[in-house]
Amino acid sequence: MELWFTEKQTEHFGITARIKRTLHTEQTEFQKLDMVETEEFGNMLILDGMVMTTQKDEFVYHEMVAHVPLFTHPNPENVLVVGGGDGGVIREVLKHPSVKKATLVEIDGKVIEYSKKYLPEIAGMLDDPRVEVKVDDGFMHIAQSENEYDVIMVDSTEPVGPAVNLFTKGFYAGIAKALKEDGIFVAQTDNPWFKADLIRTVQRDVREIFPITRLYIANIPTYPSGMWTFTMGSKKYDPLAVSDDRFHDIDTKYYTKELHKACFVLPKFVADLVK
Amino acid sequence: MELWFTEKQTEHFGITARIKRTLHTEQTEFQKLDMVETEEFGNMLILDGMVMTTQKDEFVYHEMVAHVPLFTHPNPENVLVVGGGDGGVIREVLKHPSVKKATLVEIDGKVIEYSKKYLPEIAGMLDDPRVEVKVDDGFMHIAQSENEYDVIMVDSTEPVGPAVNLFTKGFYAGIAKALKEDGIFVAQTDNPWFKADLIRTVQRDVREIFPITRLYIANIPTYPSGMWTFTMGSKKYDPLAVSDDRFHDIDTKYYTKELHKACFVLPKFVADLVK
Repeated sequence: MELWFTEKQTEHFGITARIKRTLHTEQTEFQKLDMVETEEFGNMLILDGMVMTTQKDEFVYHEMVAHVPLFTHPNPENVLVVGGGDGGVIREVLKHPSVKKATLVEIDGKVIEYSKKYLPEIAGMLDDPRVEVKVDDGFMHIAQSENEYDVIMVDSTEPVGPAVNLFTKGFYAGIAKALKEDGIFVAQTDNPWFKADLIRTVQRDVREIFPITRLYIANIPTYPSGMWTFTMGSKKYDPLAVSDDRFHDIDTKYYTKELHKACFVLPKFVADLVK
Repeated sequence: MELWFTEKQTEHFGITARIKRTLHTEQTEFQKLDMVETEEFGNMLILDGMVMTTQKDEFVYHEMVAHVPLFTHPNPENVLVVGGGDGGVIREVLKHPSVKKATLVEIDGKVIEYSKKYLPEIAGMLDDPRVEVKVDDGFMHIAQSENEYDVIMVDSTEPVGPAVNLFTKGFYAGIAKALKEDGIFVAQTDNPWFKADLIRTVQRDVREIFPITRLYIANIPTYPSGMWTFTMGSKKYDPLAVSDDRFHDIDTKYYTKELHKACFVLPKFVADLVK
């Protein structure tokens, strides 16, 4: 018997991956959580039927959401990750020696628990002494924070289920308040092929709050269309103006200092979305 | 009843697309040809079970295989397309006013016939007076050409079936002979996630023949991994050294003059493949 997991990424299009076995399946308080072992991508975390991360391609997302803002900020010390219970963004954040504290606020403790168990290379740094893990509502955490963080990364699921509040203008305003006066935030904002309206809306909302708003892209094979976007809002620092001496050596598989700027060069139909 | 077409892009991973109806299916002299109408991507041409092009995303491949070499060459007049029976590359080539003649050498006349019928926005320029269409073996055509072309694009299928000769060192040597002394060629060379060895081999072979060898990338959602590579071999002109005044206005949806250089900035694991 062959077992195949299929994610309908749109109503009429999807990806399908052959499964060796199911490692865990559970309806948590917030969402359906499945952890499976695939033939092609190693272990795969699936929430509400959508691929969140896999052992084979996770480095792209985690490196790109973390290093672009962290190399844009001249001295990131206090960093917040909203969502990201698999721990991959935290792992990348800790590669920056300036970081003194990294806080993870993940609403679903089960994501953390099963990522530690089945994705140890991704979640392994969650026990580092610089890390504080809070199982809490990211929206509420942001609402209660003020002038606190240098960099905030929003590593959320799609804007359905528990993450719906994380794609609202009120949330972005809260992030601006939670950041210090020269703070930067980045959020994953889906793909331009199937979710053009979402990107356009987020870009418009963030631009009304942050003086510097930019979109950048990365290739993630298990995400819809393979082209993923990240929206950055920055109070002071422009990612395109980072000088070459800012970059220190860092162990990566996707991010490079050359890509730091090239990832903002958008295909025309994407650039048109955010004009 | 729902009809879904699934392409196994690897043994254990694939894409699946809902089909409205099958427009044509035929075993040609060279390959299995299917033309289907999909819900998500419009009409889709499938050869030997692999997606070749779709109405929704075809512009990426066709623009990127054509405009990068054509803007690198200062005065491309005589252009050859090997394969590419859907006519998409020819359409883009003809956007360059310097081009006096564009020759298409496609081995399978049925691809041309059914592309004209079901993909008219793609194939519509094949009847332009500047175009000569030859239903012939591209490998043989190259072997018989000498000092003739400014730019050659290889728009082939994967290195199985009729295209297997188009991924050999002998073919690249033939291309070098068929090009003028300052000629440029580009070939599609699959994706770095599942076909790393192919990219490495082609890069090594082309580098032994062409003084300037480069790899560039584009996002194509219906191709494996969503990240596609193109290998360029050039006798004289470096795509990264093109001056800004070289670019003329051109109607595109993906290519831009900024992307002309940014598409050569590779993620680290891809750059490592071609070191």
